[in-house]
Amino acid sequence: MSISTREIHLVARPEGAPRPEDFALVDRELPEVGTGEILVRNLAISVDPYMRGKMTGVRTYTDPYELNSPMEGGAIGVVEGSGDESFPEGAVVVHNAGWREHAVLPAGQVRPVNVKGDIPATAYLGVLGMPGLTAYVGLLDKASMRRGDTVFVSGAAGAVGSVVGQLAKLKGAARVIGSAGSAEKVAYLIDELGFDAAFNYKDGPVMEQLTEAAPDGIDVYFDNVGGDHLEAAIGAANDFARFALCGWISSYNATEPQPGPRNMGMIVAKRLSLNGFIVSDSADRTGDFQREMVPAVADGRIRFTETVVDGLENAPEAFISMLGGGNIGKMVVRVGT
Amino acid sequence: MSISTREIHLVARPEGAPRPEDFALVDRELPEVGTGEILVRNLAISVDPYMRGKMTGVRTYTDPYELNSPMEGGAIGVVEGSGDESFPEGAVVVHNAGWREHAVLPAGQVRPVNVKGDIPATAYLGVLGMPGLTAYVGLLDKASMRRGDTVFVSGAAGAVGSVVGQLAKLKGAARVIGSAGSAEKVAYLIDELGFDAAFNYKDGPVMEQLTEAAPDGIDVYFDNVGGDHLEAAIGAANDFARFALCGWISSYNATEPQPGPRNMGMIVAKRLSLNGFIVSDSADRTGDFQREMVPAVADGRIRFTETVVDGLENAPEAFISMLGGGNIGKMVVRVGT
Repeated sequence: MSISTREIHLVARPEGAPRPEDFALVDRELPEVGTGEILVRNLAISVDPYMRGKMTGVRTYTDPYELNSPMEGGAIGVVEGSGDESFPEGAVVVHNAGWREHAVLPAGQVRPVNVKGDIPATAYLGVLGMPGLTAYVGLLDKASMRRGDTVFVSGAAGAVGSVVGQLAKLKGAARVIGSAGSAEKVAYLIDELGFDAAFNYKDGPVMEQLTEAAPDGIDVYFDNVGGDHLEAAIGAANDFARFALCGWISSYNATEPQPGPRNMGMIVAKRLSLNGFIVSDSADRTGDFQREMVPAVADGRIRFTETVVDGLENAPEAFISMLGGGNIGKMVVRVGT
Repeated sequence: MSISTREIHLVARPEGAPRPEDFALVDRELPEVGTGEILVRNLAISVDPYMRGKMTGVRTYTDPYELNSPMEGGAIGVVEGSGDESFPEGAVVVHNAGWREHAVLPAGQVRPVNVKGDIPATAYLGVLGMPGLTAYVGLLDKASMRRGDTVFVSGAAGAVGSVVGQLAKLKGAARVIGSAGSAEKVAYLIDELGFDAAFNYKDGPVMEQLTEAAPDGIDVYFDNVGGDHLEAAIGAANDFARFALCGWISSYNATEPQPGPRNMGMIVAKRLSLNGFIVSDSADRTGDFQREMVPAVADGRIRFTETVVDGLENAPEAFISMLGGGNIGKMVVRVGT
């Protein structure tokens, strides 16, 4: 008995912003589950900014997506067939096989998740998954955040930024400042997540708004955005400030190279350190991360919000919307229950 | 009996490139040498790129120069009068009182120098002084250079760059590449200092020339220049490359902000770390530096070249020439013998 399933394929490499026609919904029959393989029925799939980079044909730190193949990425699902004793049917697992309703995978490519209490499974794609680990590694390891620091994070209402700000407060930051792209997000940062200050970068020059929000300068900058945000952070930085450079969403859809900050000389004068990083290099921090973060999420010290879109067929629209800032917190696509 | 002496004062803040009329040669009488003070007769004074930054009226990491006061900076001289037992007459000392023939200074502001063998006193303003320590700290501490690295240094024929390249070879770099601003300097780097490759940045785009000189990429970049050199180094960097950002001579005379690298997003994808630094923060490394470098200079493993200009009155011209690349190795001004 074979199972019919659906996948989203990348069928064209976007120039500039991705369009729905760059993707296709494809029907297929699943293969049999062989020895050592797992059949997963997905509950939810993740759409993340980094995916834009993999849609170009250029190799950066990972291989690009192949055309006419499923979009790879984080997903969480339930084991429905197992050729490996350690994964009983009904177990919840995460994997990276991406935008599809089912996947048959080698057991080595799935990881069991111990879903606890009131925490929904989708949290393991966000606050307790790759985006949360990104925030943890960037803030603590790459920016070496210390008690008493003033911390600025851009893209603060997103999946990564929302964890950065809250974790900074939890770790004793003196002041946490966030930027986001709407008044609603700014209110969310202050009212829901406990940021000390936040601003809408569309309201005026980032440099001016950041200077106002951080009159005594910043010690840590967690960069999800690049561009004028990075220039403003260099301008507002105190001596010896540390930057974790995580993303560059301001230019992901750009078709021309974007100019860099005009104040790079201040990196010398202020003795700044700018540290680019990719979370997959820090998989060894997963254990520490989970030991700290699962209890903090369970008891509400770290809050999270999800923007949930229903139906695999809507994954491309969800992804395009997320790149344009249409999410608060983690954007996920529910594909099953 | 009072002593007549001469000093160079800064009398106007330059816009763009400094001009001779921004300086004035001033006669004065020296004060008496009080208890705890030292009278130094200078042998040589230093002209360095960082001085350009202090000529603007803006505070960066140090206070700007005051107008109508002597240009401060490194100098080496002989004690000719002493109000402190630990500094006998005839002792050789270094200090930071700058462009003058004599100085009367508190003993705490002079440091004895144990001039050895064939090493000239002026070396303590260059390869064994602040520029040498800058190279040492930047390469070893800030860029964490390791055996087997490919190292690129800009401004490679200057006081700092010429030490960076040789020290990298001494520490086991697999390949050392330098950029400089003339064919003569390029020949000097390869023939005299043992660089593996060098290019004249005026011959063509830095990105193209660096890619050709470093076909397998670079692991360390020591930046004295900024601008298109930094952009090229980001482009040529291998994953996890480390940059020590020391200076920004390409824009010291600029009157408009210079755009930054257009490929800053690669800092994330390649996991680069960019570390701005100022040598005065690393004074605690002076002992290690001297223990390693004095023997290496004495036995010729580290070579050095000086561009010597005679006469205090010619210090402004020497400084202006140095900013324009008119020196090979350390530019010093001899003011006594």
